[in-house]
Amino acid sequence: MSRPRNKRMDPAAYAEGVLSGDRAMLSKAITLVESKLEEDQLVADRVLQLLLPHTGKAKRIGVTGAPGVGKSTFIEQFGQEILQEGHRLAVLSIDPSSKQSGGSILGDKTRMEILAKSPDAFIRPSPGSGHYGGVTFCTREVMLVCEAAGFDVVIVETIGVGQSEAQVKEMVDFFLLIVQPEAGDELQGVKRGIMEMVDAIVVNKAEKDNLHKAKQTKQQLENACHLLTNRSVIGEIEVLLVSSVEKKGLKEVWKAVEDYFGQITETGFLASNRLDQRKYWFYAHVQKSLEQRFYQDPVVMKKMEEALSEISDAKELPSAVARNLVNAFFKH
Amino acid sequence: MSRPRNKRMDPAAYAEGVLSGDRAMLSKAITLVESKLEEDQLVADRVLQLLLPHTGKAKRIGVTGAPGVGKSTFIEQFGQEILQEGHRLAVLSIDPSSKQSGGSILGDKTRMEILAKSPDAFIRPSPGSGHYGGVTFCTREVMLVCEAAGFDVVIVETIGVGQSEAQVKEMVDFFLLIVQPEAGDELQGVKRGIMEMVDAIVVNKAEKDNLHKAKQTKQQLENACHLLTNRSVIGEIEVLLVSSVEKKGLKEVWKAVEDYFGQITETGFLASNRLDQRKYWFYAHVQKSLEQRFYQDPVVMKKMEEALSEISDAKELPSAVARNLVNAFFKH
Repeated sequence: MSRPRNKRMDPAAYAEGVLSGDRAMLSKAITLVESKLEEDQLVADRVLQLLLPHTGKAKRIGVTGAPGVGKSTFIEQFGQEILQEGHRLAVLSIDPSSKQSGGSILGDKTRMEILAKSPDAFIRPSPGSGHYGGVTFCTREVMLVCEAAGFDVVIVETIGVGQSEAQVKEMVDFFLLIVQPEAGDELQGVKRGIMEMVDAIVVNKAEKDNLHKAKQTKQQLENACHLLTNRSVIGEIEVLLVSSVEKKGLKEVWKAVEDYFGQITETGFLASNRLDQRKYWFYAHVQKSLEQRFYQDPVVMKKMEEALSEISDAKELPSAVARNLVNAFFKH
Repeated sequence: MSRPRNKRMDPAAYAEGVLSGDRAMLSKAITLVESKLEEDQLVADRVLQLLLPHTGKAKRIGVTGAPGVGKSTFIEQFGQEILQEGHRLAVLSIDPSSKQSGGSILGDKTRMEILAKSPDAFIRPSPGSGHYGGVTFCTREVMLVCEAAGFDVVIVETIGVGQSEAQVKEMVDFFLLIVQPEAGDELQGVKRGIMEMVDAIVVNKAEKDNLHKAKQTKQQLENACHLLTNRSVIGEIEVLLVSSVEKKGLKEVWKAVEDYFGQITETGFLASNRLDQRKYWFYAHVQKSLEQRFYQDPVVMKKMEEALSEISDAKELPSAVARNLVNAFFKH
């Protein structure tokens, strides 16, 4: 955090490094973009400005699923399929449970060993977002840096239990949910609201003794999707059976991705959705910046505890307390 | 909007009028609470402060459903059932398509004719929220005024196609979705995300030729709910068949409401959820107030068009544009 000022390079050097495919520079540029220091942010903004014309050509894919469904194994195998198709893949993992990247980097490299060793793949974990937005708020920028570095497929991975899915939905073109076969007709660990966000579902671990259960789960999901997703962009949500360990069904997932991109490119949805997403991020960043100033303001911080306790005790109206605090904030 | 200052009464007079059950004063107090004038807001805050100790005892019920499912007819009949059970009912309708209350008041009184005439019912339409939050942001306060006036059941109605459902969810204890029987296995007009917000579903128009279709729809909804709502507060989401015109199934809906309240009172969820909701509204009002100041600031307004066009053209990063605008805003 207290990197000395002279170690910071000029924006052009970062941009050139990234564009030339220098992996060390790519990592450094991402660290810069992720930095919360204001001086770093100013440099990062200039780097990103230089990279911006070289972004936007990748397929942006969100992958979510509860812990235990085999998400890492799936991405490891699916990633290799993507590489075999001639693409270059960046995987950005958001772990909301981790606020420090130290531990999870090693974790991620271990759990996606083959991908991590490939020159055509780049794996980068992001620690989860803090109270004021934090790193998830720069995941989109990290994705742009990867695109500028020549990765034409980007996977943004979340563990599907936090609040980050809605934000990831706003930075990807295609959102994939991974589930595992379930014995009953209940889907474990799928957060409310996720089902209606996704463009396709993979039932992973569709192998051996699990195969029958997997087929049942697929059928149930298809019924539910049919009922819920009548407003989908491209019609039916596809539910696909995959065995990551047996490397089965992965080609079909990639075909579904390509079909989807074919359709949304043709209909213009890809472009219009990305335009909407840019506007979304503008408004989201305005909100975040305003709230950051407000909640970190000394006067506000001093009054906050009392304000929250009055609200908790239902002694004061939430709206009135909020209005008074905002007025106090702007008075000085 | 330009009501002369001397017509504004003192807060105690409003509060006394509301608490004594004076309907004219109730209407006036609500108009005051809904006002966007800053002077009105200050008086409204004091009125609400006086009423606050007399609030919180009502059952707060959200009702949503797409246009055409017979929502008004349902509320008209269900409302009478509620009155017959000895309760006093306030119905607040949020119509996101209307920004002026003029038209919809007449509309609402017409479409709930019997309720509108009952001394134990109070029907109040709210125009939809404007760009900066608008009236939906005071619906919760309007609800509190109704509670202070002695209404022990409050229905907040939305037409289920706008953005208001998530906010209504944050002000009610029980959220009811109304659908109509569908021929196929697709549910028309149900917005993504709503299914996973509701505590019970009514399949309306379960009568005559529709009865078979209604039963099928009920079955499909039960399957989907079972799959999706494994994290529900009280277990299974109930799906109920109702014929509003034949007045069938209404007692069962009220029983479901009472059972639900019995359970959430016992488990403590009612209290903890309302505490969470109060905090939610505090943060929501802070956000709204900050954004109002920002987006209505002359400097920001002047720069906004250019900012949005740069973002649209992907010439500038949304995050950088946002940061620069917020900095400019705080500089003066």
